[in-house]
Amino acid sequence: METITTRPRVLVIGAGFAGLMAVKKLARQPVDVTLIDRRNHHLFQPLLYQVATSDLAPSDVAWPIREIFSRHRNVTVVLAEVSDIDQDQHVVITDQGRYPFDYLVVACGAETSYFGRDDWAEVALGLKRIPNATDIRKKILVAFERAETADSTREQDRLTTFAVVGGGPTGVEMAGAIAELARMTLAKDFRHIDAAQARIVLIEAGPRLLSAFPEALSDYTQRTLERLGVEVMLDTRVTDITAAGVELGDRRIPAGSVIWGAGVHVPHAACWLGVETDRSGRVPVGPDLSLAGHPNIFVIGDAAQIAWQDGKTVPGLAPAAKQQGIYAAEAIAARVAGHAAPAPFRYRHMGDLATIGRHAAVISYGPLKLRGFVAWWLWGMAHIYFLIGVRKPLLIAINWLWSYLRAAKGVRLITGTLGGTDDPAYKPPQSVDAA
Amino acid sequence: METITTRPRVLVIGAGFAGLMAVKKLARQPVDVTLIDRRNHHLFQPLLYQVATSDLAPSDVAWPIREIFSRHRNVTVVLAEVSDIDQDQHVVITDQGRYPFDYLVVACGAETSYFGRDDWAEVALGLKRIPNATDIRKKILVAFERAETADSTREQDRLTTFAVVGGGPTGVEMAGAIAELARMTLAKDFRHIDAAQARIVLIEAGPRLLSAFPEALSDYTQRTLERLGVEVMLDTRVTDITAAGVELGDRRIPAGSVIWGAGVHVPHAACWLGVETDRSGRVPVGPDLSLAGHPNIFVIGDAAQIAWQDGKTVPGLAPAAKQQGIYAAEAIAARVAGHAAPAPFRYRHMGDLATIGRHAAVISYGPLKLRGFVAWWLWGMAHIYFLIGVRKPLLIAINWLWSYLRAAKGVRLITGTLGGTDDPAYKPPQSVDAA
Repeated sequence: METITTRPRVLVIGAGFAGLMAVKKLARQPVDVTLIDRRNHHLFQPLLYQVATSDLAPSDVAWPIREIFSRHRNVTVVLAEVSDIDQDQHVVITDQGRYPFDYLVVACGAETSYFGRDDWAEVALGLKRIPNATDIRKKILVAFERAETADSTREQDRLTTFAVVGGGPTGVEMAGAIAELARMTLAKDFRHIDAAQARIVLIEAGPRLLSAFPEALSDYTQRTLERLGVEVMLDTRVTDITAAGVELGDRRIPAGSVIWGAGVHVPHAACWLGVETDRSGRVPVGPDLSLAGHPNIFVIGDAAQIAWQDGKTVPGLAPAAKQQGIYAAEAIAARVAGHAAPAPFRYRHMGDLATIGRHAAVISYGPLKLRGFVAWWLWGMAHIYFLIGVRKPLLIAINWLWSYLRAAKGVRLITGTLGGTDDPAYKPPQSVDAA
Repeated sequence: METITTRPRVLVIGAGFAGLMAVKKLARQPVDVTLIDRRNHHLFQPLLYQVATSDLAPSDVAWPIREIFSRHRNVTVVLAEVSDIDQDQHVVITDQGRYPFDYLVVACGAETSYFGRDDWAEVALGLKRIPNATDIRKKILVAFERAETADSTREQDRLTTFAVVGGGPTGVEMAGAIAELARMTLAKDFRHIDAAQARIVLIEAGPRLLSAFPEALSDYTQRTLERLGVEVMLDTRVTDITAAGVELGDRRIPAGSVIWGAGVHVPHAACWLGVETDRSGRVPVGPDLSLAGHPNIFVIGDAAQIAWQDGKTVPGLAPAAKQQGIYAAEAIAARVAGHAAPAPFRYRHMGDLATIGRHAAVISYGPLKLRGFVAWWLWGMAHIYFLIGVRKPLLIAINWLWSYLRAAKGVRLITGTLGGTDDPAYKPPQSVDAA
């Protein structure tokens, strides 16, 4: 759908933190903005694991993109799947038509990566999008249901074993939340199994959990998880994952459910842009976040590889993505206004945080290191703060508090067909979910 | 999974209003109760249409059966699909094993019926279970998205035409809610179409809407819907439904979405029990709700055909189902205790109510006839009252009020694949959803 316009046309691909922030800034500029996403909602990814463990409903962590920009008449939202970018003609090609641009912001985000073992996707569920979270929720809940009616204790044990691969924030948060789901929420629900006896194993290839955090917090995280009943395996490499369980060299853990939190990659940007990327598919950009040789094309967020400090690159965190979105919008606005380009992008690290169950968290913020209950509350407040301006922060806060107080996890719905990985009709969850 | 027990074993099939109420009563009796459902949640069906129109999240209208009975140690919940009932051996056969019983309560509920035109199921979406509601939600939202990028106004018009078949409460509520979704919530969201111009057609074969209500309320309902912009077609029979639209004899309405609210039937009970049923599959029962010749087998709720007054049968409403659940539990308890059987079941009609958008409702309660805003509030209060004792009535009330005040419908998520009926990969929604 091409429209004739006299104002510069800015096209933004992706409504994650980076793209959304860019559009919010550009909405106040004399430009026409088109935001293309294959889904109709922005997802607040940091809380997604709570959907997977029945604490929150999908609509608590996602809201319609159109609603966010309904009053900005210069912003057009398009639900479409990008298939290519014609850099010479300045056109983005989608399944819904061709969209010409004067400026392009590529913020297409990352997907779960299985490091070349895509066959693992069928049994090791990743956690990037809402259907992933509801798939994991269903997988966990059905495992307990099937254990309740299983014939042998061996099969009951297998079904109630949950292997979480990857000791980063996602793995830590998932392992802690599953442990609490089993030991608290479901404890009294079954008659033939003891849900509290569920086995939760967290497997990390490196020497410690949360490698981006200071070592003391990694140790604290491990101890806290172990107190929740999580078995932590460090320096342990997963060699195979099947419907029967996880293989670690010559060891084998029979497990009914495997959650994958070990890695991400950027699937499309390189192929659209025809450029070389790093190993995880990220597109290298210059200090103004533009593509080499294409000053009107910006790549931001998880899709971008941006130099930072000590040879490291800017991490794939929400605050980093937002900073890049703001920067790209300002660079475009300056260009449109004929002003000087802003100073090169400089990442301000806001710290790292991760929760461990519903009583503890670890926060690393510059010289400030926090852990325990105080950190948990700060984590909660930070998230509620970030939610301000969106649909219903108060409701989420109430729901969250309610859930916390009751440890009830009332969102534990199994909907859709029961098909799990043991089901011959099972199809692997699609990381490309809506559109 | 058979367990040895000395107390009478009561088996209840179905955790709808009837079955749930029976188990609640039986939980306090000296019996062992097993509740079998193919889903893990009880669904509050009267509010389901609000999930279809993005007002509520699925978890707002459903809650885990296990949670409801977690403290009743004599209640065992089984997630299983019943395949047969052996009336001589007193055993229920499921995909998870055989369950013997001393008393059986069949409360398996009703499903959407297409009156023999099961091919319509692919294009005319029914509304009985959560996946139906999220399918309808997706269908409606994707229709607007596709209209926004469509090439011709003809196709835009077709996509933004919604045909609702059946002028009972479901059809009236859906038509009103879609009209408000289009005219209020989505009004400012699109740039190439005017969502407020969407066409909503409500088609009823009989001479008036809400035929169970007094005529004056039917007329009021029609006028109110028309004020919301709904076209009401009475005395109009649907002769065919395809992906292109609805056929009414020689007339044709091109429509992108068709919602089916025209009828229900009971798919399984007759075949399990090997009995004759009425046209909609309901099993005739005696005045004590038991099956003829089987005094220890009760059939209740939508699955039962029970004589009422003026040649009519007890209607398929939530209060009726609850009364039957209580009665069956009392009849069993009396038998177990060696007391006299209770007096024959007598249905106390609590009235009829239906909402029309978010500003009006109609209520018929004995001599009391109410309509308009007051009725709407009473309807809301009645529903919140019925929700008391379950998970989070307060949250639903807040969410509902919030949604009402903002008319925002933030739950308008499109998740899963985009597949609609125009999609070659589309599979019809399964009325048998979870398990």
